[in-house]
Amino acid sequence: MPRTRSDLPATGPVRLGPDSRAALRPAAVGIDTGFWQARRASNAHVSIPQGPALLEAAGNLHNLRLAAGTAAGEFQGAYPFVDTDVYKWLEAAAWQLAQAPDGDLASDGDQAPDDDLAAEVGRIVALVAGAQQPDGYLNTWFQLVKGGERYKDLRWGHELYCAGHLIQAAVAHHRATGSGELLDVARKFADHVDSVFGPPGSGKPIDGIDGHPEVETALVELYRETGERRYLDLAAYFVDRYGHGLLGGEAYCQDRVPLREATNVEGHAVRQLYLLAAAADLATENGDAELRTAAERLWQAMTTTKTHLTGGLGAHHEEEDFGDPYELPNERAYCETCAAIASIQWSWRMALLTGEARYSDLIERTLYNGFLAGVSLDGERWLYVNPLQVRDGHTDPGGDQSARRTRWFRCACCPPNVMRLLASLEHYLASSDDNGLQIHQYVSGRYASDLAVIRAETDYPWHGTIALTVEETPAEPWTLSLRIPQWCREFRVRCGQETYEGSVADGWLRLERTWSPGDQVVLELPLEPRLTAADPRVDAVRGCVAIERGPLVYCLEGVDHPGGGLDDIVVDTTRPLAVKHRPDLLGGVTTVVAAGSRRHLPDVGWWPYAPVDESPDSSQQDGEPVELTAVPYYAWANREDGSMRVWLPTS
Amino acid sequence: MPRTRSDLPATGPVRLGPDSRAALRPAAVGIDTGFWQARRASNAHVSIPQGPALLEAAGNLHNLRLAAGTAAGEFQGAYPFVDTDVYKWLEAAAWQLAQAPDGDLASDGDQAPDDDLAAEVGRIVALVAGAQQPDGYLNTWFQLVKGGERYKDLRWGHELYCAGHLIQAAVAHHRATGSGELLDVARKFADHVDSVFGPPGSGKPIDGIDGHPEVETALVELYRETGERRYLDLAAYFVDRYGHGLLGGEAYCQDRVPLREATNVEGHAVRQLYLLAAAADLATENGDAELRTAAERLWQAMTTTKTHLTGGLGAHHEEEDFGDPYELPNERAYCETCAAIASIQWSWRMALLTGEARYSDLIERTLYNGFLAGVSLDGERWLYVNPLQVRDGHTDPGGDQSARRTRWFRCACCPPNVMRLLASLEHYLASSDDNGLQIHQYVSGRYASDLAVIRAETDYPWHGTIALTVEETPAEPWTLSLRIPQWCREFRVRCGQETYEGSVADGWLRLERTWSPGDQVVLELPLEPRLTAADPRVDAVRGCVAIERGPLVYCLEGVDHPGGGLDDIVVDTTRPLAVKHRPDLLGGVTTVVAAGSRRHLPDVGWWPYAPVDESPDSSQQDGEPVELTAVPYYAWANREDGSMRVWLPTS
Repeated sequence: MPRTRSDLPATGPVRLGPDSRAALRPAAVGIDTGFWQARRASNAHVSIPQGPALLEAAGNLHNLRLAAGTAAGEFQGAYPFVDTDVYKWLEAAAWQLAQAPDGDLASDGDQAPDDDLAAEVGRIVALVAGAQQPDGYLNTWFQLVKGGERYKDLRWGHELYCAGHLIQAAVAHHRATGSGELLDVARKFADHVDSVFGPPGSGKPIDGIDGHPEVETALVELYRETGERRYLDLAAYFVDRYGHGLLGGEAYCQDRVPLREATNVEGHAVRQLYLLAAAADLATENGDAELRTAAERLWQAMTTTKTHLTGGLGAHHEEEDFGDPYELPNERAYCETCAAIASIQWSWRMALLTGEARYSDLIERTLYNGFLAGVSLDGERWLYVNPLQVRDGHTDPGGDQSARRTRWFRCACCPPNVMRLLASLEHYLASSDDNGLQIHQYVSGRYASDLAVIRAETDYPWHGTIALTVEETPAEPWTLSLRIPQWCREFRVRCGQETYEGSVADGWLRLERTWSPGDQVVLELPLEPRLTAADPRVDAVRGCVAIERGPLVYCLEGVDHPGGGLDDIVVDTTRPLAVKHRPDLLGGVTTVVAAGSRRHLPDVGWWPYAPVDESPDSSQQDGEPVELTAVPYYAWANREDGSMRVWLPTS
Repeated sequence: MPRTRSDLPATGPVRLGPDSRAALRPAAVGIDTGFWQARRASNAHVSIPQGPALLEAAGNLHNLRLAAGTAAGEFQGAYPFVDTDVYKWLEAAAWQLAQAPDGDLASDGDQAPDDDLAAEVGRIVALVAGAQQPDGYLNTWFQLVKGGERYKDLRWGHELYCAGHLIQAAVAHHRATGSGELLDVARKFADHVDSVFGPPGSGKPIDGIDGHPEVETALVELYRETGERRYLDLAAYFVDRYGHGLLGGEAYCQDRVPLREATNVEGHAVRQLYLLAAAADLATENGDAELRTAAERLWQAMTTTKTHLTGGLGAHHEEEDFGDPYELPNERAYCETCAAIASIQWSWRMALLTGEARYSDLIERTLYNGFLAGVSLDGERWLYVNPLQVRDGHTDPGGDQSARRTRWFRCACCPPNVMRLLASLEHYLASSDDNGLQIHQYVSGRYASDLAVIRAETDYPWHGTIALTVEETPAEPWTLSLRIPQWCREFRVRCGQETYEGSVADGWLRLERTWSPGDQVVLELPLEPRLTAADPRVDAVRGCVAIERGPLVYCLEGVDHPGGGLDDIVVDTTRPLAVKHRPDLLGGVTTVVAAGSRRHLPDVGWWPYAPVDESPDSSQQDGEPVELTAVPYYAWANREDGSMRVWLPTS
């Protein structure tokens, strides 16, 4: 029986511990062509290589040199967590290095980008190591701006948050390169944290938590990497200290209510989601059933009441936090790119823990929409916030909260976060258990578990055919499980001479049989475009529909609808939707064409409200017909600035 | 011909200068019974008397003593503009003193509240005077916290903003009491400002403006009070320096584009509105036709695209600013109470300048709704933000941006702003010109101009009958003009033996005749409740209606609808609305009763979006019938905390 193939990525950001209670184990996938390979190529060739220069220009690397005493000058940057931009870039670069030598990367030019990248990583790892203080502490803001003061402002200081990203970078670096250089730095910091923080009676000087959860998942992964259980215990201690007022009791910092008692997600979205990812990790490694129940309950509450159609999370600009249930605004959707990433990280841990398909349903939706919109098609520009609407006449605030793509941010958390997810994407796509292999997401490439290797060919999400060929298999029967997406109402699968049609109850199509190399399974997911409506409690989209096709949410952009704005447009839901593949457009997309009209509105005088019987709604039937061209939401804002809408009025 | 009656308030916050080009002159009204007298009694007996203790507790008065060197300790408060809480309270108290001796006030107890109030005013005026620096500068934050540094941070420092409120308080104090004590302080500061700020080439050291407009209207009023034209010139200079990048070019500070070129209101709502009030003042006093055109254009743009049904202004919590056109969210409506006040102040100046009724239409709507909601019925608790919806399951952030009434705020700008408007309300209700008297708002009391005195009796807004009796009149014919509200489609008026019915084109019903004392005019405004819809571009309320009656916007509160939340409720627009007066409820209100139902929603699983043909909308017809009780919006949040909605889904 073949082990994991050595030419496929064997390590990922979530590696289960020896006592894990997870239902599934992560499996490796080699993505070699298709939709995601194109996105990953931008990441590998543009986004990641440009990182060091941007970090240099923004001062992040300079700060490390200042802390090391190898440069002079002023601290640069406005936040105590600027070091994490470096750590997240290092993590992304490490995952990227884990894929080299990769034909796609090496074929691109006359020099080997992976060698350059390895050199850059080595240089920056050395800068990080140089900035560390002798006892393991490392935070350039506090070392340089705050005169070395430590842990006095846990609510805002982000010291443990920074430690967390350092640890994650170090684990990635170790897994990818085998080098212990950054891991030593991270362990030294983790040991320092472990010597300082602990519950009352532990003899540790501080009973406290960080205002921004993040170190918890990192410590779990450090435990997984090193086998040292005290890192896991420290993570468990931190997770359970939220919600008891140590940070003043604010929901923003996850301190209003303990996770075990919470009934819905709340507060700053990224903080909430990182904390929940840690809860899933602890339920996995500790078998903590109460934490698992809480995580399941909160995931359900989040998806039913606080998730945008794109998978985006976080309704408010103010405090970057979740809104009330069903408060899902369009133009002011915050949907921070980092929150989409955190959601994927949490859901993947839940998928492994429970084996349930719905978690990967949300991952699919988020990957193709709320997450992917965060980076431009060319890999050079970014969105921090991901609204579902930009109005005609929009006045953009610019800066971090701009609805226009930006080269880099003053608070540059999102770009390197996108980089690290894209560079490790192959680790979120498949899993295995003792009975077989589970395919969670469909890409072109090879899915490999301890048990078997499957070759997949697909042009998904543009086409719905996924052709799977068994390459390696044991002689004994095993189960190939295919996730039937939540959006898919009917599917068809050919397996040898057999054909199945229909639906599945729990999201998994399980094909148990004795497989032979060369066996073929062809899954057909129907990709008819569809009109989607929301629960009527989502007030923001009442009387509207969205266009979707497969996993993709679509939107209208002003640039495709000259001769007027988007806010006067009405979609005709009685007319069929048409599909048009446009290889010329936005790197090649399938557009959806709908029939619509432009309202002719009477002059309202100076007041836009009127008695129902006088209201302009009754006179809008005679609008001017307009052909509506919808493009995938992930590809918006890659042409000229203008308006955009996901949800379209029906009258 | 009688002059303005001496027992009626003769001075107000807007007094035109000798060269004014205004179409109308402010006239005085004595409000003695009815709706607004009740609100003003709370203001006089509760809100204003409690002010000094609250200002003491918050540290504002302590800061003045610190600056005077008569107390020791630390500066208290988090903002450079904490002094304005004191100034606005002083202005409110001064307008209140202008009304004493007033039967209503004096009859209330065994001591005369106005004597107590006068003593408090005197005490606090002395504190302010004591804190002033020898050269006239006064700002406790900069004197105490910033080591006396001045005008180095115009973007955020609020030094001129504070000067403006000091000047307004001083003008009110002088007009109300005849005392020059506070006016001397204000003039000294104004002279100091005039010596420091001026255009390049003026020889003044600073060419600059304040991040928060406010001093401009104050300087115009100081010119009106003192006759010194250099105050008017200074105001004109400031207004025209916005929009040229002196503050970094941000829309927030009104610095993105000059008013003369702007096409819509933008940025921080209160800043925009105070600046526009000053523009109206300058157009009035200087005959600046371009500024007038700009103000008219921006008022039109604001009302058609950026005004909530309640008259509330400001769509965003973040930056407290206007949103894009037609971006008018409900639960996240910011609608700062101060913005409603600023809107009234601006619109009143426009009404006087142009003579057009629509400005007073907006004032009426704002007074009865977006403004009045800012203070509790008992005058003791406040709203800083005024949302149009509070969801079931709302998690309140507390603090200044709470959707729950609060005793006082860390940033306490709104409460004393409400106090000063209520205490000077009689100055926003009527005007005169050479041809007669114009009644802009209907209250019980006496309307007096240079020309005539009219006694009005009405139970408006609960009943639509307004009975007017001529008390004093010249023998010559003159015109009594009655504003027919914008919401009113048909009215009836009896004038002696004549009856008119119908509508008017420009909002003014003009009755020109020879009047005799005792002549009666009875205006009947129909108060049938109505369902109102919005321009379809207001996405947030698509598929919804609001209940209105006369000038009042209504809302549902959760407390009146036990057995479920408000977010499942649908209103049946085919069934008639009923009116029920409830003297027991909320100090006595007329409620509107509507038929509705509660949706029965199917289980959505974990995802609240579904193809249109599967969506729960199609199954909601069989909801459970519910009688809906709507209460006036201004009276919401005066009982237990809970949900609230202005806009109600129709399906």
